[in-house]
Order: sequence, then structure tokens, then C-alpha cells
Amino acid sequence: MDLRQYDSATCSVARALDIVGQPWVLLVLREAFYGLRRFSDIQDHLGVSRSVLASRLEAMVREDLLERRPYREPGQRERTEYVLTDKGRGLYPVIVALRQWGDEHLTGDAGVPVHTEHEGCGATVRAALVCDAGHVVGVDEVERRPGPGHRLRATAAH
Amino acid sequence: MDLRQYDSATCSVARALDIVGQPWVLLVLREAFYGLRRFSDIQDHLGVSRSVLASRLEAMVREDLLERRPYREPGQRERTEYVLTDKGRGLYPVIVALRQWGDEHLTGDAGVPVHTEHEGCGATVRAALVCDAGHVVGVDEVERRPGPGHRLRATAAH
Repeated sequence: MDLRQYDSATCSVARALDIVGQPWVLLVLREAFYGLRRFSDIQDHLGVSRSVLASRLEAMVREDLLERRPYREPGQRERTEYVLTDKGRGLYPVIVALRQWGDEHLTGDAGVPVHTEHEGCGATVRAALVCDAGHVVGVDEVERRPGPGHRLRATAAH
Repeated sequence: MDLRQYDSATCSVARALDIVGQPWVLLVLREAFYGLRRFSDIQDHLGVSRSVLASRLEAMVREDLLERRPYREPGQRERTEYVLTDKGRGLYPVIVALRQWGDEHLTGDAGVPVHTEHEGCGATVRAALVCDAGHVVGVDEVERRPGPGHRLRATAAH
């Protein structure tokens, strides 16, 4: 498959990056996977300004990565938590793959900051490529062919 | 593990995003995984300006994601190709995880633009979480504990 013949913007990677490639989105998702749901907790931990975080959370709700849920502490007014949707949870392999690459290449002598383990089993969790036939797949063992949603480039039609 | 006690910037996800979260980096890597190596091919396919692509490629070489290699077409002057390093190739699971999420959530009725298949076997390739004991791991089956490179937040020490 010669990538140059195909419309770059139709690619699922490009479409995904239109959403999750925006600043802070993957870091907010990381916080959510760790269980942080409250504006003040996320803001305090990330060190991001209130206005930036507010607009980012609004976009993430609009894109159905997070949903708003009301909560109320005793004696306080009602506030809003941000909880991962199924669509948002679908991005966990992206986070794990980024973490793993950072662990391998960017930690230096200090070692990994966080161990990620299989609950109950204790073995290290990593992102891997697998195929539906159950094989673990190497980076060089992948073939690509156009699917039904491909689009040729206008210029490639000449 | 209460994430709030730990320094957000020490996380491998944050460190990885400092590099691959820059505009165009993951899209340039996608082009590289498809075999595009030449400035003009990448620029033409992505539709990015020459100056932006040049500075992005320079940063990616500096970060050891790509390396420069000279090539020469017959009768032409020597030019430069950009080839994935091992460190760059380590980001393939990130690309596959993004593609898969885009395929699942963003293609609409048109269907997937590209099939990604296990060479020889033909089965669809996907990014999955696995553990070193050989289990496939669900999003909710992950436990985290501080590793040797963790850093407590200054404010958490009080």
C-alpha cells in the first residue's frame, strides 16, 4: 500500500489526534485513569490554570471522553465530577504505550516512577501488538491495505 | 496509590508527551512507519509547510526518533532521508492504539480507512494490554505502585 495515494486526513490516527492531540487531553485522561475526578484535584496535580482546564474538560465532555456527574460533600453545595466514558476508557492502551516508551527511554538512572501491574497476578503490564488469531505481532510484521473508508487524494487521481 | 502525592512531571506519560505531544510528531512517525522517508514525500502527504516540517524533523533527530541518511538519485545532488531509530520504532504501539481508537469511534458509516493485518496470518492487528505472565489485561485489572524513580510532591511533604 503506497500511503502517498491516500488522503492523509482520512486516517484514523489523524482523526484521533484531532481530539487527543490537543494540549492537556492525554494528561487529563491519565489523571482520570488514576481515579482523579474532581476539578480541584486535577487542577492542583497538573498545575494547569483554571481557565485552561475548564475549557479542556468542556471539550472532553463534548467529545464524549468524560461525563459530568454531580456530587455533594456534607454541608457543601453540589459540585461536578468528571468520569471516564467507555469511549474515554478506550484510550487506555495509548496511555500505557506512552508510559512504557517513557519508562524505557526517558527515566534515566532513577528507574521507573510507577510500576503498572496486573491485579492479582503482579506481573508488569505493557502495551503490545496482538492479532485476532492470538499472536503477538512485531513492528515489522504488519501489513496494511485500504479499507472501505479509505479516500484517494484528489491529486492522486490524475 | 494516591496520585495526588506524586510529582506529576516525573511520570513517564508526561515525559513522553513532552516529546511526542508536540504538533506533527506522531503524524510524521505514522508516515515513517508507512515507509515515507523523504522530506518532499512527507511534506506533500501531510500538507505541512516546509519550515514547520524542517524544524519538526530536526527536533525528532535531536530526540533520536529519526536519523538522517544520505541518498542520491542518478544525476541529482545528495539528499537526506529520515529513517526510524529503535527509539522511534518503540512508539509504534502508540500509533496502533490511536488508530484502533479512531477506527472504533471516529470512522462513521464509511468504515475503517486502513486494515492493519498480521503479515502472513492476515488477522487484524490491535494494541492490547498484556502482562509478563502472558495474560491479556483489562483496563480495570491494572494496579499501580510507586517505582524507584517516583518523586513526592514538595507540597505533599508537609
